[in-house]
Amino acid sequence: MRSIARGLGLGSAAMALTALTALAWPGTAGAAPSGAQSLYAPSALVLTVTAGPDAATGTVLRAVTLACAPKPGGTHPSPAAACREVRAAGAKLDPLAAPASRAACTREWNPMTVTADGVWQGKRVQYSYTFGNPCGLRNTTGILFHF
Amino acid sequence: MRSIARGLGLGSAAMALTALTALAWPGTAGAAPSGAQSLYAPSALVLTVTAGPDAATGTVLRAVTLACAPKPGGTHPSPAAACREVRAAGAKLDPLAAPASRAACTREWNPMTVTADGVWQGKRVQYSYTFGNPCGLRNTTGILFHF
Repeated sequence: MRSIARGLGLGSAAMALTALTALAWPGTAGAAPSGAQSLYAPSALVLTVTAGPDAATGTVLRAVTLACAPKPGGTHPSPAAACREVRAAGAKLDPLAAPASRAACTREWNPMTVTADGVWQGKRVQYSYTFGNPCGLRNTTGILFHF
Repeated sequence: MRSIARGLGLGSAAMALTALTALAWPGTAGAAPSGAQSLYAPSALVLTVTAGPDAATGTVLRAVTLACAPKPGGTHPSPAAACREVRAAGAKLDPLAAPASRAACTREWNPMTVTADGVWQGKRVQYSYTFGNPCGLRNTTGILFHF
């Protein structure tokens, strides 16, 4: 019974609505996972800044979380603005990472890599972008990678 | 100057301490990213539950964030307990995902996959585990994947 209720509850939004109106969580041992009844596509990311050109092997200097559904949250310093930005960009992160045209940066090679991993509106995200040096990172067009 | 200060501040904890006592952030335009002065190795994860056996192609049903440094946070329903659990397990997630021995599950094939992506104590994490059916997921040994 519990399995059936959950199976329905996890389906499409329409199915979940139906299931939720038709069924209550059986009062068995163990709390119902809070996310099981979500009616939105999940959006949750981990953003990192890594020293060097390779996110897989470099030292992770900083990492924050960003959740955008049902409401902005996480340890990112500006979650609401960051969520708005990713939404406006249709989850294409290159324009947000690219250094702004106004940025005046030197060209020494001291690479820094940013990454975004997780889920955006139910679709998996795996993104990385390498800056030639920290100046580019300090001058990204968006604020997503400003933490 | 700014680049040098940041370069030092982003090094190991010991280097960062030295840099922070020796240097203040130059008061140039643009706020200092809040994470730049962190003296701890970052720990931030996105946890997902995906329908099907393949996290890359399946539908992501639920996703939460979990940050564990400097303090537990994120959209996970029990961040403090989840952080404690991952720490106690030395970031080996298999024992947390594995169904508890007390679990009595049927064996039909209706796979669900959980993932953990991000960073744990500065090291990259990319983890996935597939349950034969939702019963296993409901009975994981740990609470990390209980959301």
